[in-house]
Amino acid sequence: MRYELYYWPSIQGRGEFVRLALEEAGADYIDVARLPRGIPALTRFIQDEPEGRPPFAPPFLKAGKLVIAQTANILLWLAPRHGLVPRAEAARVWMHQLQLTIADWLVEAHDTHPPIGGAFYYEDQKPESLRRAAHFSAERLPKFLGYFERLLKREKGGWLLGRTFSYADLSLFQMVAGLRYAFPRAMERLAPRHPRSAALHDRVASRTRIAAYLASPRRIAFNQHGIFRHYPELDP
Amino acid sequence: MRYELYYWPSIQGRGEFVRLALEEAGADYIDVARLPRGIPALTRFIQDEPEGRPPFAPPFLKAGKLVIAQTANILLWLAPRHGLVPRAEAARVWMHQLQLTIADWLVEAHDTHPPIGGAFYYEDQKPESLRRAAHFSAERLPKFLGYFERLLKREKGGWLLGRTFSYADLSLFQMVAGLRYAFPRAMERLAPRHPRSAALHDRVASRTRIAAYLASPRRIAFNQHGIFRHYPELDP
Repeated sequence: MRYELYYWPSIQGRGEFVRLALEEAGADYIDVARLPRGIPALTRFIQDEPEGRPPFAPPFLKAGKLVIAQTANILLWLAPRHGLVPRAEAARVWMHQLQLTIADWLVEAHDTHPPIGGAFYYEDQKPESLRRAAHFSAERLPKFLGYFERLLKREKGGWLLGRTFSYADLSLFQMVAGLRYAFPRAMERLAPRHPRSAALHDRVASRTRIAAYLASPRRIAFNQHGIFRHYPELDP
Repeated sequence: MRYELYYWPSIQGRGEFVRLALEEAGADYIDVARLPRGIPALTRFIQDEPEGRPPFAPPFLKAGKLVIAQTANILLWLAPRHGLVPRAEAARVWMHQLQLTIADWLVEAHDTHPPIGGAFYYEDQKPESLRRAAHFSAERLPKFLGYFERLLKREKGGWLLGRTFSYADLSLFQMVAGLRYAFPRAMERLAPRHPRSAALHDRVASRTRIAAYLASPRRIAFNQHGIFRHYPELDP
């Protein structure tokens, strides 16, 4: 089955967590909105809601007749079909829990640059962004990083499930990569305390399929329109 | 099996979505942090992380040896065990998708009052709150409400799955109830356009076990420490 992924074509955003899983799985998929006439195909789903169960927002994945939205929900569905999570229920529940924790972390990282809402331009809310970014770097970032570092320390083996690789490792890789782009100085300062997350990042990046993906034009570069944005004044 | 729910004892918050499901199911559970010495029992999990797979934050549910965190993840696990979701996989994926959409909506409702981050007092970020709340009421609230109203219109039958009641109905009830508390004027203005969500709210409230729960001291009243807070100036 050829999957159809629907997500904004010019950013990594939430869709990137799904792209990484599809790439690692070697799945047959098309990134619909990046094709000619792809954006109308995406917006048709959202605006006209032609399907019986319309998604509220991208990303969503079409798998045969099924249309699945919400990043963590897509991964929950995809992972067991492609060997990206163990069979045992307890492990699946735990991986999904970590993915949802990463989703919360992502919202907090995102909200540093438009804390008053995405409808406003960054330039119109700079004082608020400065305040929130300072709080994020000083309190929230170390809290989330520390949590995942402790998990890696506990499990040994290098992955979040110890010696078993899973999709949550891809997601943690993406968080570290994105945060290094957006907050290079804060991440540099915190680096000595999080050697295991850094090692996981490098191990993911060097996996055969992921390395090929990262070197390909399919990997959109981080940019100032995505969830992770670099504003030097927010990362003093 | 007696479940143990761990959540802050003085607010509805995210834990309320789990409480509603447990109550509707007639499940045997204790709300640990509301018992004597319950709060230390909760914080021990978060601070000492004694378990193999520590949650990042409440709510979490202890079910035998399993400790499950993340509201939507808890409901995903609980619902099929208590008849709160159909057996068919497609229905479960769809209900989880709606629950995660509600979780996003909840974050946006929450962030109207402390948009710069929960670590600051509302009084210190009033201008930001005014701006964000105006955007929420004018754009985001109608967008989310409209989405769920269209789903109910499409499905007929009165529930999000048509004639089949599910836990997502409990969660939509909770959103309507909370938003009416926090934004009574905005919700009043929008009411004519959302008769089905209002009808769903009333039908849920009159279900035998939910009605008994809402009338009991187990239901914590909405208050100014929870996710839904009423500031008259944010709801002009």
